[in-house]
Amino acid sequence: MDRDRRQRFVDLHRDGCFLLPNAWDVGSARLLAAAGFPAVATTSAGIAFSLGRPDHDFFAEHGPQGRLDRDTMLRRVAEIAAEVAVPVSADLEEGFGAAPETVAATVCAALAAGSAGGNIEDFTGERSSPLFDEALATERIRAARAAVDATGEPFVLVGRTDALLVGGTVTDCVRRANAYLAAGADCAFVPGATDATTVAALVRDLDGPLNVVMGLTGDPLSFAALRDLGVRRVTVGGSLARAMYGHLRRAARELLDQGTFTYAQDQLSHADLNDLFRPR
Amino acid sequence: MDRDRRQRFVDLHRDGCFLLPNAWDVGSARLLAAAGFPAVATTSAGIAFSLGRPDHDFFAEHGPQGRLDRDTMLRRVAEIAAEVAVPVSADLEEGFGAAPETVAATVCAALAAGSAGGNIEDFTGERSSPLFDEALATERIRAARAAVDATGEPFVLVGRTDALLVGGTVTDCVRRANAYLAAGADCAFVPGATDATTVAALVRDLDGPLNVVMGLTGDPLSFAALRDLGVRRVTVGGSLARAMYGHLRRAARELLDQGTFTYAQDQLSHADLNDLFRPR
Repeated sequence: MDRDRRQRFVDLHRDGCFLLPNAWDVGSARLLAAAGFPAVATTSAGIAFSLGRPDHDFFAEHGPQGRLDRDTMLRRVAEIAAEVAVPVSADLEEGFGAAPETVAATVCAALAAGSAGGNIEDFTGERSSPLFDEALATERIRAARAAVDATGEPFVLVGRTDALLVGGTVTDCVRRANAYLAAGADCAFVPGATDATTVAALVRDLDGPLNVVMGLTGDPLSFAALRDLGVRRVTVGGSLARAMYGHLRRAARELLDQGTFTYAQDQLSHADLNDLFRPR
Repeated sequence: MDRDRRQRFVDLHRDGCFLLPNAWDVGSARLLAAAGFPAVATTSAGIAFSLGRPDHDFFAEHGPQGRLDRDTMLRRVAEIAAEVAVPVSADLEEGFGAAPETVAATVCAALAAGSAGGNIEDFTGERSSPLFDEALATERIRAARAAVDATGEPFVLVGRTDALLVGGTVTDCVRRANAYLAAGADCAFVPGATDATTVAALVRDLDGPLNVVMGLTGDPLSFAALRDLGVRRVTVGGSLARAMYGHLRRAARELLDQGTFTYAQDQLSHADLNDLFRPR
């Protein structure tokens, strides 16, 4: 990815608020870019699902068996970054390892894969201890920042805290997110902040730009409301991918139960899709 | 793919009628198999779109630029076949070349990729001469059959004629399809046969099982009606994939134009998807 495209992504975070939708393959990324979004993110859940694998961040009885490895995840990021003109931000989960040097290597690999930014979360995936110790989590961000800065490339490093998702308080979130910002994150990402009170408290108390994710729970705030509350960017996580699987399952049920094909009325035409995917 | 799975696919074609939905990646194939279909096919259009490429079979002014190569297409077929328990039938387009020996190599490569069957079409993709000469098209099927038989593996070879799609008559279709069946195809596939009169004529005049594709045009016959007319199997081409892109574009427009997230109400839950994609 060229330096200009990375710089454009950095600049998007300077003021205002923008929507950053999450794609899972080149086709979804190309469609979203063509629709007019200024950048696209990836969804690690959507990428995993497209490859028939479970997502990392869940508390299943069996643990995160079958999780994608880093190379597979970043191969998909690279495919997407090579095929869209807009900046691409990579969902890097917990950095594919606990150690700060592993996280640093992951962020460098994401940069080499063509991304203009990436998220590192503090969720461990372990039921008994769902968040990395705060000091370690902060060192992980510091190591990632140092590794990126050593390349000299513009890159939006996002520190994500899953504290709210695992039963923590807004105070926990603010303390962790501010530690990540102080360690070099450009933006703080707090999944689970979906009501106006929580979002307003985060905007007030955080020492940097806030990313929130919508599409996870019912009746969320609108983009305009989030913007007016002071949110800097809004992602949608795996929700677009999960909605597509919802539609696919309904179509499958229609085929099996009714033997009809009305699902096909919702399609983009073959000609429109061929136009969309014409070589750039 | 084990011999048993291939034999099950051959057996599915012995009598009655079945729905064979078309997947484009492992995720879509796993969902369709879990929904209860006895087998899945691939859609070359859907696979191309997922990789941000146009489909082969269209008459664009620019020709089929950017079309996927055979290795890329069959890599996806292999990924799918490795990750689902049901038989997989591969959309092999025109065999990725005109010569009978190329088609034979393509079918062998599809078998090696784990498929239990595959379609070879007579559409050239060239506006001036959209169908292969009938004698050549027949030789292409004969070569594919011989190559498959030499492996000793069960394999459902499908001869597809696109005569109706390029303005030919039902008589043209019957003549071509019967030539392909005589050359060793196990099943004849006639895209464009969507009305009862045409379907009934094909069932009456063909010397083998008929596959029709739904989801391309408005108001098609139901599966039950097609079964009662004597169709042996019903595929849906790229229609499931195109419907997903339709939903994705509507979600993108909602995000951009309304700034709301109601598209997310249609989603499968994260927990359901993690269950679906749990390692087998």
